[in-house]
Amino acid sequence: MKGHLIKTGDNPDITKERRSATFCINKMANFIHEGHENVKRREEILKYVEEHPELCDKIPVEFMTREERVERNAQKAVAMTDHADCIDGSDFFGEGMYYQTLVMGRDFHGMLLHYSMFLQCIQSQCTEEQLDKWLPLTILRGIIGTYAQTELGHGTNLKKLETTATYDPVKEEFILNSPTITAAKWWPGGLGKTCNYAIVMAQLYTNGKNRGPHPFIVQLRDLNNHMPLPGIIIGDIGPKLGVNGADNGFLLFKNYRIPRENMLMKHSKVLPNGEYIAPKHSKLGYGAMVFTRSIMIRDQAFMLSAATVIATRYSAIRRQGEIIDSKGEVQIIDYQTQQYRIFPQISRAFAFLLAASEIRDMYLNYMEKSQISSDISLLGDLHALSCGLKAIVSFETAQGIEQCRLACGGHGYSEASGLPQLYTFAVGGCTYEGENIVMLLQVAKILMKLVKNIKNGSGNLASITEYLKRDSEKTSNFKDYKTASGEDIIKDFENIARNQIFLCYEKFNNTLKEFTYEEAVNRTGIEMCKATRLHVKLYLIKNFYTKLTIIEDYDVRKVVMSLWKLYAFDMLSHLSGALKYNNYMNDKQIKNIKEGIYYYLNEIRPNAVGIVDSFNMSDRELHSVLGRRDGNVYENLLEWAKQSQLNRNEVLPTFKKYFEGMMKDGRSKL
Amino acid sequence: MKGHLIKTGDNPDITKERRSATFCINKMANFIHEGHENVKRREEILKYVEEHPELCDKIPVEFMTREERVERNAQKAVAMTDHADCIDGSDFFGEGMYYQTLVMGRDFHGMLLHYSMFLQCIQSQCTEEQLDKWLPLTILRGIIGTYAQTELGHGTNLKKLETTATYDPVKEEFILNSPTITAAKWWPGGLGKTCNYAIVMAQLYTNGKNRGPHPFIVQLRDLNNHMPLPGIIIGDIGPKLGVNGADNGFLLFKNYRIPRENMLMKHSKVLPNGEYIAPKHSKLGYGAMVFTRSIMIRDQAFMLSAATVIATRYSAIRRQGEIIDSKGEVQIIDYQTQQYRIFPQISRAFAFLLAASEIRDMYLNYMEKSQISSDISLLGDLHALSCGLKAIVSFETAQGIEQCRLACGGHGYSEASGLPQLYTFAVGGCTYEGENIVMLLQVAKILMKLVKNIKNGSGNLASITEYLKRDSEKTSNFKDYKTASGEDIIKDFENIARNQIFLCYEKFNNTLKEFTYEEAVNRTGIEMCKATRLHVKLYLIKNFYTKLTIIEDYDVRKVVMSLWKLYAFDMLSHLSGALKYNNYMNDKQIKNIKEGIYYYLNEIRPNAVGIVDSFNMSDRELHSVLGRRDGNVYENLLEWAKQSQLNRNEVLPTFKKYFEGMMKDGRSKL
Repeated sequence: MKGHLIKTGDNPDITKERRSATFCINKMANFIHEGHENVKRREEILKYVEEHPELCDKIPVEFMTREERVERNAQKAVAMTDHADCIDGSDFFGEGMYYQTLVMGRDFHGMLLHYSMFLQCIQSQCTEEQLDKWLPLTILRGIIGTYAQTELGHGTNLKKLETTATYDPVKEEFILNSPTITAAKWWPGGLGKTCNYAIVMAQLYTNGKNRGPHPFIVQLRDLNNHMPLPGIIIGDIGPKLGVNGADNGFLLFKNYRIPRENMLMKHSKVLPNGEYIAPKHSKLGYGAMVFTRSIMIRDQAFMLSAATVIATRYSAIRRQGEIIDSKGEVQIIDYQTQQYRIFPQISRAFAFLLAASEIRDMYLNYMEKSQISSDISLLGDLHALSCGLKAIVSFETAQGIEQCRLACGGHGYSEASGLPQLYTFAVGGCTYEGENIVMLLQVAKILMKLVKNIKNGSGNLASITEYLKRDSEKTSNFKDYKTASGEDIIKDFENIARNQIFLCYEKFNNTLKEFTYEEAVNRTGIEMCKATRLHVKLYLIKNFYTKLTIIEDYDVRKVVMSLWKLYAFDMLSHLSGALKYNNYMNDKQIKNIKEGIYYYLNEIRPNAVGIVDSFNMSDRELHSVLGRRDGNVYENLLEWAKQSQLNRNEVLPTFKKYFEGMMKDGRSKL
Repeated sequence: MKGHLIKTGDNPDITKERRSATFCINKMANFIHEGHENVKRREEILKYVEEHPELCDKIPVEFMTREERVERNAQKAVAMTDHADCIDGSDFFGEGMYYQTLVMGRDFHGMLLHYSMFLQCIQSQCTEEQLDKWLPLTILRGIIGTYAQTELGHGTNLKKLETTATYDPVKEEFILNSPTITAAKWWPGGLGKTCNYAIVMAQLYTNGKNRGPHPFIVQLRDLNNHMPLPGIIIGDIGPKLGVNGADNGFLLFKNYRIPRENMLMKHSKVLPNGEYIAPKHSKLGYGAMVFTRSIMIRDQAFMLSAATVIATRYSAIRRQGEIIDSKGEVQIIDYQTQQYRIFPQISRAFAFLLAASEIRDMYLNYMEKSQISSDISLLGDLHALSCGLKAIVSFETAQGIEQCRLACGGHGYSEASGLPQLYTFAVGGCTYEGENIVMLLQVAKILMKLVKNIKNGSGNLASITEYLKRDSEKTSNFKDYKTASGEDIIKDFENIARNQIFLCYEKFNNTLKEFTYEEAVNRTGIEMCKATRLHVKLYLIKNFYTKLTIIEDYDVRKVVMSLWKLYAFDMLSHLSGALKYNNYMNDKQIKNIKEGIYYYLNEIRPNAVGIVDSFNMSDRELHSVLGRRDGNVYENLLEWAKQSQLNRNEVLPTFKKYFEGMMKDGRSKL
């Protein structure tokens, strides 16, 4: 079965690689996608999409103008939701995300927030009456909604939003206003041109008092002609590094009135006379955030995977330079430096995918338990972990994609590689859904609290943080990269993470003697971020190891173990300073860890193409001439380039307009 | 004088920052730009450009389609060269580059290679007769040329180029052919649509023998109608991550004939009868490459500088989050984590700029000496250094720009920030002019040779590599970040670099016992790259220090010293493992280095805006709403966004075409 991707006419170099794999690609794919059934479903969904031209682009998106992209994405968004019954809608983590990626590629579209934030808010913030009114309208696509929270001058700090909703008890209406330019809603997806409704977060004023930010459902555009309603100033925020098929928008209100019933009143209420009824308990909505982030982590992991598929396959067919004179040019995948650029990214992709699955399961498990026993004690830890993972995974994914892109040399810089699109799309994840540094600091604050509790003897820790309580061993057990046990390697990581977290606590605690809590957090910020990073990396390495040890198939397990070892040794070698703290490791051990990297690069080499094949990514999903299954890169680069906008005419108007005169003039002077 | 950038109507936060600077901006600008005269010239050139509308864009480039960009760049390229006498053409390193940046922004154009590679080849590879024919035509812009070397399947390894030039003694012509698809010329700037001539590198065949790659001047398009000539297949290679206003092209030959005289015959010759005359000595052209790279390093350094100007100014006016409750939201530049993202990039920019100047001076000095004494012994070292610097500077510039972009949060992702353009343009530098890993390995090979010589007692080292011969001290002299001398800190770097280079040599030498030279290089590749990186970083830190100690103005020197210390401590803290090798440093010293980072971030904080102001970059050069001199970001973001392509109509065609029917249908089901 190891050769099922091999076809006649393929590039012989890639076929050779596929034949050299020591494991069964299908079994590895089953491991990656959590079961054969899921792999089969991927193939069915792919077939469905490819059979429906309305779900496919006629020309590759990179040859379109921004207007063409937005238009195309609108058409596809409608078609995609028309055809939504081809997937299991309850499985967004699996089928939903995959289906969306196949149709939309690496871009957003105007209806994205309709199905995520808008729908979610309707479901969780409406009274029964409001639900009756808005839920069917939303689900039936009778309106298109978005979620407008972030403002031009305000992101993370929600308390300071400036948009106001002032209640007028005479007319029983709220009056929405944007008192300043910084109050303009800014960034919401689909807000610019697509949506005619939005959930708007605004400072509620009743009886002259500010009650803090609350959600309101607001009509933005006329249902018949789609014109912005009077009092609404709205538009697109302009081009971005990526996602240019989406119309992220701005929105300003000028005395815009909405009925009292348009405040989403499940939790807080405003009565007709203007009386404000506060929520019983502030719903944090952590649960939904954990789930959203687990989807995001998985999405990022697949983007990193895609980049590794592209770079690995291309490195297998690209030949350049000679190592042995008589043997001709070598496949660039044979260079150690090339392996070192790409293979650690493959191992990261595994670590991230497995973490995404685990956090989803933890969440589902928690949900089940919380419904039986209303025990929500785990949620804090789970939320913290999801914040930390989001930050690490999004940053390292972006970095990893760029490494893969650079590893493809000049062709990696071309849109033909698919890598520019992947990078510009993925790197957005460092900023949205919680800016990464803010995320890292949030988690660090929780870690600091845990350490304080441990020092006070009151540490009741979940399994994720339980290592903080254990004593460090004096020196590492690590002897040799070949014999080192997974448990020992994990202990080395625990030691580093624990040290950093405790050193950070010490600094933080000392700073607290002189400064307020927030100031102390600020003055310890860099150390805090490091503490979170190590805590999360420890989690990644542990979870990866736990999941690999239960792989039944010996050949698959062996390969995944090599990836895990590479992942571990590569990280450890970047932490050699921390390993040498308190003489926990000596120079010889550090050197041996480095030798481990070279050893496992070598181990992975013959299986590299097989491993990336196992991600089960079709040419459609990869959207890359360099990453084609068949390895026939060069002829297809030429075919791709012929579609360039500039090639529609042999001679551009620039000749007549500018160059002809200049050259004639120049020649006339000879 | 410190307030000369302050104007009425500026954002009060940015004015406050300018008032707090402890040094004179003008004096700092003179230091950065190497003299008051240069600063004055920058301002004159800026004024000239702004007074000529043909040198300016009517709408910002980010709102244009690719076709519009190419057209606009064509017009500007002609205008720019029309007006070339506004600058001192002999000073490309200074005035030329600046002028080009002001006119073209962060993009290339179709005539770029005409003035660099094409002209250079004409000048250096032509016989006297050929010079008479081609040089005036080139200088007078009677033709537009490019340089076509890289092929679809061949980059770094020139020996393996596939394009052939076969001599036909009957007609006294060369017949050019692209025997395979991988032989297609690929990437040359301006080749796709603009140029009508090219210097083509092709395998020369005479009398049935291959003589290796040689340069030929080839007409590509008809002078009258610009149509590709018969036998020429040519076009644009399609969109890229950046530089989309340039028409990088492909080119295939089908039995295309050129006269014998079109081979550039200064060095090798083909006589009418087909007899081949080999060059007397292979001219390596290292000199020109050193100069080109010193320009590139400076260009990269200015791009990193621009990113720091944008991120620093924006961080001064952006307020978010509270540290002290009663004091309102803080400027985000007050967060330690934000400082740590941006300030090390400022110090890097200084290091890179100073290195670019130094390498230019070394080159000019060498040129002078070599003309007097024909002593070219220094060239090898100089070339090695320029390769290494190119790799480090381009990679860290790209990384640094991304850090600045991420530090601007959501708005950094918008093209309004100017940072996406900067990144996508700058990161190309990791790949062109010598792929970075290839560069690092080249330098490492030279370092290995030096170590071998030292071990054999025959080390005759230039000042750049002379530290390799010195003995390491047992332990570091470093005591405290406040008192540590520059010389001691440099010794710590020397120790690390020397250790890595010698450890690498040991591994390399051991590998040589079992393997061939090339195979041993490959198997030591990762360690070799590390060796070069440390060697170059040592150079950067040393050169920075040397140049700062001769600053006369006390206030300026103090600020630059803070930047240098931050640069040094930040790098050292990332090398803590290497510092602890052989117990050269202990945990306390390492901890103190980290404290040094926090200390110098704090030191720099009040001067941050002043420092970036000193880069003397106009709003035109920055091309960034976030980085505006006046700090009035928000109102101008809104004005910028209004220009979005999508805002030309209140309602897009997508409504009638796709969404109206969908929504009506949805509502009809209620």
